Parts: sequence; structure tokens; C-alpha cells
Amino acid sequence: MSLLVVGSVALDTIQTPFGIRKNILGGSATYFSVSARFFSPVNIVAVVGEDFPAAHINFLKNKGIGIEGLSIQPGGKTFRWEGAYSWDFNNAKTIATHLNVFVDFNPRLPAGYRKSKYVFLANIDPQIQAAVLNQVDNPRFVACDTMNHWITNKRKDLIKFLNKVDLLFLNDAEARQLSGENNLYKAALAINKFGPKKLIIKKGEHGALLFSKNSTFSVPAFLLKDVVDPTGAGDTFAGAVMGYLAQRGRFDDATLRRALVWGNVMATFAVEGFSLSRLAGVNGAAIRKRLKEFQALVSF
Amino acid sequence: MSLLVVGSVALDTIQTPFGIRKNILGGSATYFSVSARFFSPVNIVAVVGEDFPAAHINFLKNKGIGIEGLSIQPGGKTFRWEGAYSWDFNNAKTIATHLNVFVDFNPRLPAGYRKSKYVFLANIDPQIQAAVLNQVDNPRFVACDTMNHWITNKRKDLIKFLNKVDLLFLNDAEARQLSGENNLYKAALAINKFGPKKLIIKKGEHGALLFSKNSTFSVPAFLLKDVVDPTGAGDTFAGAVMGYLAQRGRFDDATLRRALVWGNVMATFAVEGFSLSRLAGVNGAAIRKRLKEFQALVSF
Repeated sequence: MSLLVVGSVALDTIQTPFGIRKNILGGSATYFSVSARFFSPVNIVAVVGEDFPAAHINFLKNKGIGIEGLSIQPGGKTFRWEGAYSWDFNNAKTIATHLNVFVDFNPRLPAGYRKSKYVFLANIDPQIQAAVLNQVDNPRFVACDTMNHWITNKRKDLIKFLNKVDLLFLNDAEARQLSGENNLYKAALAINKFGPKKLIIKKGEHGALLFSKNSTFSVPAFLLKDVVDPTGAGDTFAGAVMGYLAQRGRFDDATLRRALVWGNVMATFAVEGFSLSRLAGVNGAAIRKRLKEFQALVSF
Repeated sequence: MSLLVVGSVALDTIQTPFGIRKNILGGSATYFSVSARFFSPVNIVAVVGEDFPAAHINFLKNKGIGIEGLSIQPGGKTFRWEGAYSWDFNNAKTIATHLNVFVDFNPRLPAGYRKSKYVFLANIDPQIQAAVLNQVDNPRFVACDTMNHWITNKRKDLIKFLNKVDLLFLNDAEARQLSGENNLYKAALAINKFGPKKLIIKKGEHGALLFSKNSTFSVPAFLLKDVVDPTGAGDTFAGAVMGYLAQRGRFDDATLRRALVWGNVMATFAVEGFSLSRLAGVNGAAIRKRLKEFQALVSF
């Protein structure tokens, strides 16, 4: 089934204890789609500037990702993010954010994308998330991400939009901020009242929680020896979750739990290299091998 | 098989967002033994002062815990700890520590305890841990806990002692401190070289990791709505782990993994009430029910 992601395609400059990489391919829609494509066809809607290397566009196209909705703004500059991680990879420090073409991002969906059944609205202004969703005819399953910036500055718009969302992805700090509850169980109950019947709370190296009607699922993260760059882990995770759900065409509890496990597995590849260097290179055999390793890690 | 714990029996004053309780029963050996007794007979070695309420001694005795090694120091005052937790229950703030009778704690094991096959040396001076272990004739399985204070101030003694230990319990911060490695996988490899073939890293609300030869196990914590007082959770966890191992009489990977799950389950009862109020009251049915809930939480 057709999966649509609306988000950023960016050029990142990343510093980690393992080095610095300048102007490498990044962005939520990029990580999401490169991960989701292993499970389902996926189309992206995003905007870049004229400075965006054609090689990156070819890269996405060659991965089988639909790029009809990737517009190049004449005279514009690509969205850029500069961040740094210390040895504690759980927290990124933003050094600079240049929104550039993202300032006026107000996407019109290509006609063919309006019939998308699975929609992921990555972390952008909730008013834009709502405006995009309005262009989709009759989606079966809608998920979104957000961040502290929108929870603080666009709380009303965000809560209004959440009413249209089936599944919300948040990290633990965002869940606490949005709900005003410190206990994550209570936070989930509070967020549930805003609309989303399903909630995934991402806890970085500590795994993830899934809250759905009458059921809670807790899954640890894969234990990795070599984390190189955690950028994009959350979007890679979401891409696998949504890709798997689109592939299965169902959202029952058992399917959702398996989707989180796939999210976990795919996220490991995102963090083992800078940019998409590792994620882009894996194949089905490597993914299945890691799934087996994950099962060995958590079974008792 | 006989399980011995050497540690503290204390009077705690605890502040949490749910209230304050003064001079309540606490101590590592207390939590450990009240948890372990569900799985195996357990004997404690500790010291209290003349101010220690007889009711607490009766409580331990009535729970079937061996108290021959619980000595009352004439004229002495019981070890007291005063701590506070904010809404983030992961970190206790120590307000005051009164070692009192613990200053001269140098236990002589009762003759009957020298044949203990399973030994847990709770968080005390590593020189005392070593001195106690020397009094045990031929233990089958030795485990211990420690803390940042000993890692900083008695590093040499601690590392020397660890060579005699089969299983080490640490929290994540202590594992990083002891090993000098931020990545927990690498930390475990480094600690392994100090001697313990098995290592459990406790991550509080994020669960626990088990490192043993050629195998790593990650288990999330139970997700609780109502955490009242996390004091003693780690010792309750260790009590269930060691109690289960003593009951099974084996330490293969599958048995160890199940031991961690039991540790998780028992720790939930420790944190649902002040002191041992909740833990002491549970029965086998409540424990088995929670195990089932835990399996439902993590299965996929």
C-alpha cells in the first residue's frame, strides 16, 4: 500500500567523538524513506534548494523512493542543521539551524499522492502537518512526529492536529512536556485524550514504549558496540514502523509490536555510520541477521 | 541451597513527592532477604544498634529469614540513611548518612553460615566483603554489589576482591565509572577482565542488562503507574536473582535470564510502597500475576 512521508531533506554538519562530517545528506524524510523502502513503496514530499547535490537526488531515486514530490526551489538554499554529540549519544546539541527553503515550506501534494493510504507527517510545524493531511483524500492510517519547539510555541495547533492522528511518535522528554506528567504511563494516558489512539515513546538507547488501547509494550533497544552518529535514528525507526504497517495493512496490537521491533532493528543501521552510509548499504540478509540477534538479546 | 547475604539493616528517613517517612526499616540486607525468601532459604549477617526496634527483628524472623547473624551492638546506634527523591525517581539525593554501628562492622560468620553455597556481599567496603568471603568454606556462587564511593576511594581493594566474584551487580553510572568506558557493551568487556564472568548492569526504570560469556541479555523494567519510593529496588532485584539461582542450583544463561526477570518482577513491589510495606505483604499469587503482566508487556 502507498506510504507517504512529508518532512525534511537536509544537509547536515555533524560532530561526534568519531569525527566531523560537513554537509552530508540528512533530514527526516530521507532517513524515513530509506528505511521504509525495505517494507513498502514510499513517496516523499519535501523541498530542497538549488545547492542540493544532484547525486543525492539520484541516490533517493535509485533506492526506489518516489521523488515526484521533492521540489527544488529556484534560487533557494537547502535546509541545514549543524549538531554535535558527546560520548553520551542520547542528546544532540544544536549548533546552528538554517531553515532556508523550509521557511516557506507549504507543500502541494502531487495528484497521485492524494490517494496515499499511509501518511507520516515528520517533525514540522503542526499547521503545515494539518494542511498537508487535508490534501489526502481518505487515509487509512496517519502518524506524525513533533518536537519540543512545537509543543512550546504551537501547542494549540499541535493539539488540534493530533485529533486527526492515529499514531504519535514522541521521545520521552517530549511526552513529559506535552502531557505535564513525569510518569510515562500517566503521560500516555493524558496524550491519549488529545486524540491519538496509539502512542510510541522513543527512549533512545533505552528502547521504546507502545501504548495502544488496553495494551502496553516495552522493547529495549539493540545494544551496540559502535555508535558513530545517532542522527536520524528516530526517523529510521519510524520509517520501519510505518513501512511494516503499510506492508501488513493492519494495525492490531501484535502487528504494531512487530513493527516496533523492525523499527529497532533498522535504527541500529542508522547509528552505525555517518549520514545514511550504513543504512543505505544494508540488504535483506543483513536486516534478517540483525533481527535474529535482537531476538537472542531479549528472549528469556 | 543456603543463601547468605551480608549487608546493612538500617533505619531510613525517606522523602518522596508522596510524603516523608521517618526511621523506617531499610538496608540492603533487609530488602535482599525479604525478596530472596520467596525463592530460597536466606540468612542475613548485619549489625544494628540497641535502638533497633524489636518489632523489626520479629518481622524478619516471621518471614522465615535466618537472623542468627544479625548482631545487636551494645550501646550502639543503628545505621541511618536519609534520602530524598524528586519526580525523577532515578536519582536519590542523600541528605545524611550516619554509619553508627557500621563504622566497626567486621562480621564473624556464625559457624553454620560458613558452609553457605550462595553468597551475596551487598554494598559495603570491599575489604570487608573480602574478609567475609574468606570465612565461607567453599561457595558455589558469589555475587556482590558496590557503589561509586568504593570505586573512587577503594578502587584497588575493590578490583582485587572482584577477582573472587562470579556475578557483579552495578548500575549504569557505576559500570561507566569502574570501566572508564561510556558504551555499556565496552564497559562490560572491561569489567569482565577484573574477574567477574557475569555482570548485571541495572538501569533503574530502563531495565537491566546481563553480560555473560558469549551472551548479552537486555530486559526492560516493568512499567509502573505508581512509584512511591524506589529505595531498595536494586537490593530487592538482587535478592530475587540470587534467590532464584540458589533455588535452581545452576547458572547457565537461560537460568540467569529468568533470574533477571524475577528480579524485575520483585523490584516492582519494592517501589510501590515506602520501606517494605508492599513487598512484605505480597504472596505467591500476586507475584505470579505480575510475572504474567510482565510477559504481556514485553512479548512480541
